[in-house]
Amino acid sequence: MPTLSEMSDAERAQFRTEAETAYAELQQAGLKLDLTRGKPAASQLDLSNALLELPGGKGIADDGTDTRNYGGQLGLLELRAIFAELLGVEVDQLIAQDNASLALMHDLVVQGILYGFGGNPPWAGQKVKFLCPVPGYDRHFAICEHLGIEMVPVELGPHGPDLDQVRELAADPSVKGLWAVPMYANPSGAIYDEATTRALVEMPAAPDFRIFWDNAYAFHHLTADEHPPLDVLGMAAAAGNPDRVLIFASTSKITFAGAGVSFLASSKANLTEYLSHVAVRSIGPDKVNHLRHAQFFGDAEGVRTLMRQHRDQLAPKFALVDEILTRRLRPVGVGEWEAPEGGYFINLAVPDGTATRVVELAKAAGVALTPAGAAYPYRKDPRDRHIRIAPSFPQLPELEQAIEGLATCVLLAASER
Amino acid sequence: MPTLSEMSDAERAQFRTEAETAYAELQQAGLKLDLTRGKPAASQLDLSNALLELPGGKGIADDGTDTRNYGGQLGLLELRAIFAELLGVEVDQLIAQDNASLALMHDLVVQGILYGFGGNPPWAGQKVKFLCPVPGYDRHFAICEHLGIEMVPVELGPHGPDLDQVRELAADPSVKGLWAVPMYANPSGAIYDEATTRALVEMPAAPDFRIFWDNAYAFHHLTADEHPPLDVLGMAAAAGNPDRVLIFASTSKITFAGAGVSFLASSKANLTEYLSHVAVRSIGPDKVNHLRHAQFFGDAEGVRTLMRQHRDQLAPKFALVDEILTRRLRPVGVGEWEAPEGGYFINLAVPDGTATRVVELAKAAGVALTPAGAAYPYRKDPRDRHIRIAPSFPQLPELEQAIEGLATCVLLAASER
Repeated sequence: MPTLSEMSDAERAQFRTEAETAYAELQQAGLKLDLTRGKPAASQLDLSNALLELPGGKGIADDGTDTRNYGGQLGLLELRAIFAELLGVEVDQLIAQDNASLALMHDLVVQGILYGFGGNPPWAGQKVKFLCPVPGYDRHFAICEHLGIEMVPVELGPHGPDLDQVRELAADPSVKGLWAVPMYANPSGAIYDEATTRALVEMPAAPDFRIFWDNAYAFHHLTADEHPPLDVLGMAAAAGNPDRVLIFASTSKITFAGAGVSFLASSKANLTEYLSHVAVRSIGPDKVNHLRHAQFFGDAEGVRTLMRQHRDQLAPKFALVDEILTRRLRPVGVGEWEAPEGGYFINLAVPDGTATRVVELAKAAGVALTPAGAAYPYRKDPRDRHIRIAPSFPQLPELEQAIEGLATCVLLAASER
Repeated sequence: MPTLSEMSDAERAQFRTEAETAYAELQQAGLKLDLTRGKPAASQLDLSNALLELPGGKGIADDGTDTRNYGGQLGLLELRAIFAELLGVEVDQLIAQDNASLALMHDLVVQGILYGFGGNPPWAGQKVKFLCPVPGYDRHFAICEHLGIEMVPVELGPHGPDLDQVRELAADPSVKGLWAVPMYANPSGAIYDEATTRALVEMPAAPDFRIFWDNAYAFHHLTADEHPPLDVLGMAAAAGNPDRVLIFASTSKITFAGAGVSFLASSKANLTEYLSHVAVRSIGPDKVNHLRHAQFFGDAEGVRTLMRQHRDQLAPKFALVDEILTRRLRPVGVGEWEAPEGGYFINLAVPDGTATRVVELAKAAGVALTPAGAAYPYRKDPRDRHIRIAPSFPQLPELEQAIEGLATCVLLAASER
């Protein structure tokens, strides 16, 4: 069978007719499926249902803290200890906060704008740019866009962003930030390697340049190869840039999405500065939820065990997507994707100029996809080719229908070119 | 017995000697007591221990929402319905958020600075002033001070702030806000009456002038007279200023301080605007905690019943403070205070110029008090006379020791003048 680019005109016409027929059948199936967001499935949430009856007792922590009362800006020590071990940082480099690490990132960008970092002038009134490895996470980009920070896309490869590009751009003192999802990047699945990470913390940059190291999927391995987190704080300190990196993590995709705990790890100076601002905003995070989580996990190994249970549910979904795309698209040479080693997404590159059309076709057939371009600043995918697939939420039969439908749409859009 | 001001020189010398002796004895007692913050006592927190094992099951709400997963910016409907009834607002005028109403207030002030309200220009770069009824809540003032908003004190009477002062100041378009604790004001216990409230929502002011109506103690009655909340949103709408008022409330002093739920009630336009910003910051509040609270309360009457149990614990503490101050200070005509009908504080006015000295003496005797001036913008009590007493946290025997000690310090400081 020839690939699409090898086809004769007649073959191509035939291919298009078949694609149209398949799409007509898809529309008749009356699907109502959703691949838009990286939401855990209900069966994954069930793994943590014990949390719903914790902490019990009187809410007193191991260190005697009455978690029911005010106070404790740093978060509960026993939970911080577990995640410090998991993230490979010191306990005093990590604080536990409320339910959304996205909120921490947002508030730290706002901190830069209103107060500045490390004694440098506030960003307000300055031209400020953030480097955005692409494809990337739409909610990172939404923070920048909403706050009027100019986003500069840089190419993300399998081991991190293009360093030549990043180094050149970071020499501009108006570049104040870089968004990174270092482990299993959303949506490409890229894993920042040690050399790239070292270069990012060593390169010359503004003194208030900050890497927003969103390690959202640090423990979310899809294979038995459980990559340990890199010691990015240690590398930054060794490079003489101890305050460059802000590490974010959360239990949103470990326990409950929206009812978990978020973490911020950084230098003592950065944490002290952050806390000086957050103390004006709140008397402290929800420590009962910290205690509930600490009791549920028990220790770091408890988290690892739970993540393997998630993997057991997620890996077959990712395998199914790969199987369908391989069977449907590979023979005609349409589409590119990698089977990620972790995280929540598959990044499908369709032929240039067809991503918007694919999303449109899928929508008309009852399959909701993230809008084309969502993984790019200002929603502008220059080649209109990236589609983010989030296979976690549906169960296997629905996922199969959705990806088969998606493949049908990809083939039709390709045939229309 | 003559009052201090009626005493002869000899009587005054004798009074001072006695006060010094009493203080020396107090110091020898080696107390370690804390009256600084309005924290619930552990025995109050115990009233809500059932929360520590809720919601149980699978975390599914009455309306089918899986509270464990992402989404739901407005908060859980069944909890919003309970607090809408209690606050006397429509359900669609109220949203439930995370654990700290202080955070909502902070974020709304930041919203004014970064984005502006209702299509008006952002406050950033403008001279912005907030009116601060005094004595008032130190954390309100900390938000303004931290964000560079100029605070203008106005006199707070028993029924609200001095309206002549407020009206005159609000005519200045750079006045963008007013802090109000309308029910059982922190720390004076003032109750905003209907006429004052109506005047505040009717008076001419900047289009982006907002009243931060912090109804933190709306249900925290110390007597059987359970004042219902005023319909301030209705009054504001009737006055043609529907967007003027932002109502804040929380369960911090209903269930668990720091692990409760916060509420924002306002016009639909204000809520929509707020949500447009908060959607960039977070995917949603902790809905499991909403469900936990909704199940625990059952309905609005459940909240009222719980608040009566709090009252049963708190009223004797407030009565004890009143009894000791009356017995120790009244005979010599030193100090002024009101027995509040609700809330968490007693505002003790000591002779002019002695509050700082009283706090200093108390500290040296092991009784921690809120710093003198804390209830004033920039911590400047012009007459150095206000001391905030927070009697909730200690149990009765410790409270008795602390207030007897405080009275000793007040008398010594008065005798030194």
